[in-house]
Amino acid sequence: MARIVQKFGGTSVGDIARIRNVANRVKAEIDRGNEVAVVVSAMSGVTNQLVAYCNELSADHDQREYDAVVATGEQVTSGLLAIALQGLGIQARSWSGWQIPIISDDAHGKARIVDIKGDEIDKSMKAGHVAVIAGFQGIGPDNRVSTLGRGGSDTTAVAVAAAIKADRCDIYTDVDGVYTTDPRIVKSARKVDKISYEEMLEMASLGAKVLQTRSVEMAMKHRVRVQVLSSFSDAPGTLVCDEDEIVEKELVTGIAYSRDEAKVTLIGVSDQPGIAAGVFGPLSAANINVDMIVQNTSQDGTTDITFTTTRTDLDRALKVVKESIKVPYKSIGSDKSVVKVSVIGVGMRSHAGVAQTMFKALADKGINIQVISTSEIKVSVLIAEEYTELALRALHTAYGLDAA
Amino acid sequence: MARIVQKFGGTSVGDIARIRNVANRVKAEIDRGNEVAVVVSAMSGVTNQLVAYCNELSADHDQREYDAVVATGEQVTSGLLAIALQGLGIQARSWSGWQIPIISDDAHGKARIVDIKGDEIDKSMKAGHVAVIAGFQGIGPDNRVSTLGRGGSDTTAVAVAAAIKADRCDIYTDVDGVYTTDPRIVKSARKVDKISYEEMLEMASLGAKVLQTRSVEMAMKHRVRVQVLSSFSDAPGTLVCDEDEIVEKELVTGIAYSRDEAKVTLIGVSDQPGIAAGVFGPLSAANINVDMIVQNTSQDGTTDITFTTTRTDLDRALKVVKESIKVPYKSIGSDKSVVKVSVIGVGMRSHAGVAQTMFKALADKGINIQVISTSEIKVSVLIAEEYTELALRALHTAYGLDAA
Repeated sequence: MARIVQKFGGTSVGDIARIRNVANRVKAEIDRGNEVAVVVSAMSGVTNQLVAYCNELSADHDQREYDAVVATGEQVTSGLLAIALQGLGIQARSWSGWQIPIISDDAHGKARIVDIKGDEIDKSMKAGHVAVIAGFQGIGPDNRVSTLGRGGSDTTAVAVAAAIKADRCDIYTDVDGVYTTDPRIVKSARKVDKISYEEMLEMASLGAKVLQTRSVEMAMKHRVRVQVLSSFSDAPGTLVCDEDEIVEKELVTGIAYSRDEAKVTLIGVSDQPGIAAGVFGPLSAANINVDMIVQNTSQDGTTDITFTTTRTDLDRALKVVKESIKVPYKSIGSDKSVVKVSVIGVGMRSHAGVAQTMFKALADKGINIQVISTSEIKVSVLIAEEYTELALRALHTAYGLDAA
Repeated sequence: MARIVQKFGGTSVGDIARIRNVANRVKAEIDRGNEVAVVVSAMSGVTNQLVAYCNELSADHDQREYDAVVATGEQVTSGLLAIALQGLGIQARSWSGWQIPIISDDAHGKARIVDIKGDEIDKSMKAGHVAVIAGFQGIGPDNRVSTLGRGGSDTTAVAVAAAIKADRCDIYTDVDGVYTTDPRIVKSARKVDKISYEEMLEMASLGAKVLQTRSVEMAMKHRVRVQVLSSFSDAPGTLVCDEDEIVEKELVTGIAYSRDEAKVTLIGVSDQPGIAAGVFGPLSAANINVDMIVQNTSQDGTTDITFTTTRTDLDRALKVVKESIKVPYKSIGSDKSVVKVSVIGVGMRSHAGVAQTMFKALADKGINIQVISTSEIKVSVLIAEEYTELALRALHTAYGLDAA
């Protein structure tokens, strides 16, 4: 007997018929002899409606009240799914975040889970009850309901799995797994059977919107095996697991891209000690997230500095640079028509030449690389947005990822 | 400075514009220098939708899950109203039943409030925060959310008023007070300025759907002064208060009626000791509520027994009589076309002839009285339903209640 956490998103529980469908999926897992806890999102559309109410009343509403309002969506689904399960003859009970409790910090609206007391759920499950848990929420140190930010139900599921020592956490979604790259762009993209936490983290944070980044971090920290699979098919999904569990390691596991990128270039910055701190200090103080940074070698006592940020932050970033940066520079330029493309794979650790394959494949297609950034398991480049599809297809082929 | 509890029903908070309107009403009370706690219902339609979901999944769903689902409606409204109040520059915070806590018994779906810990709310109010409380709910001994049954928000408001020692509990509704009788039927009906708890209890339980019966019982028990008034006008409402506070006592304060009545007659019951117990024991065991009972004087060793029950219970009552009653009888008859009309007034205690005025007024209009039942402050009669309007108008005039 294994202990499984199943998580179903808003589309999967979008109406009563679909909630019944989910109940049947839970039953199938029980019929296989497993113990099950389920984490659910709000019925699709509900959260948006509740958020709209809050915004209509006040643009800068109290996040604590926002949380009290919005967290109800998941509470409704958990009660309804418990009723649906009981209708199939399965013992079940619903749990709100505060009942378990799922203890969070007090950053209302985007709280982080601090601790989950798994004892009550564990006891209830051992007594034969399926635990149906409202996702996306917890209770803060102020004894008030908190929410984890959009997509937080994934994190709830992983955290619950860690707390009750589950053998696996199955995240049901509207795609059937993690792909080598976006299958809407590259027809030959393949589903990945297994992917390591580190790789998934890069995939998730680089724009592959399958799992919330924080949920992958949590899975990695607590070594929770996570499976991503479709709630509308019976095909096996992608297992996110420890690197050691993956026998056949690919050199490159996947290719991710992010369009939410903007580039800022400071030209003719006087080259003196402390200029990087002088430029990025004020940006950091303004809470602007800077991603890639390039500083060219100095010529004539000046240098150029290029950095990227998100498109939403670009205007604020330019304002900060113009108003707060004390370092002298000649001119400033910006570009929103850029995309970041990354090749990811734990195999890179032990193999040289991975970056070179990327640079050559892009050069062969005449794609200019504007910025390069690397980490132990990824190489990212910034290119003009118009080349996105061409670059993804070229790289997918170059790394031998195309389906046979 | 007075401490006021305000309660707003589903229609009053039916959309965002109306929630803003309620916020303005709360502000007006604060501007008068008062401390305010607010109890809110779910936005109109929301509870029905949630109940429909539960019913669609299972006709005999788990009441604990029903409570978890349905109680969210009030939680949403409380958060939204807190946001609306903050938008007017008023400090406010929302409270769910479990946060206060409002402790109930474990009769999920129709729980009774056992205790309210007023300390936390009291502290928050003393710190200058309006308490916005989700009505209709509590937390049971099983640490799960409970609901008080439809209309339970009135009870929440009165119980909160008792717990925080409020000077008055204002129940805002879609009528502007308690009337001498139904103004849709009797054009000359007048709004009553003050009514005693005992009278209001009779009016409420006899079908004047202004306040939930249980809320009046609770107000009487804790001596909470309750005002019923309209959320859509500024007119003063009706104060439900201690009899001693009413200086000008009317002989009859109001005339109530209930169409939810059905009559059952057992003819030719053998007259022997224990027949009443033999008839009503099985009905009581089947949880059928019997209201009026008449047993005629015995003739020829047999007697007739008539009783009333609700129309919804009639079929079950007939089944119980036919199957379970051991007392021999000749035949059984039933009638759903009856109505109970009652005159109510604490003045009756000290005045004779009140019933006689009723009997004469009805006789003058040729209305036959089928059953009579009296208590210290009311006289009820069962008549054919077709005479309802005629009877109400005749009695209203006979007791001098018509507007001048």
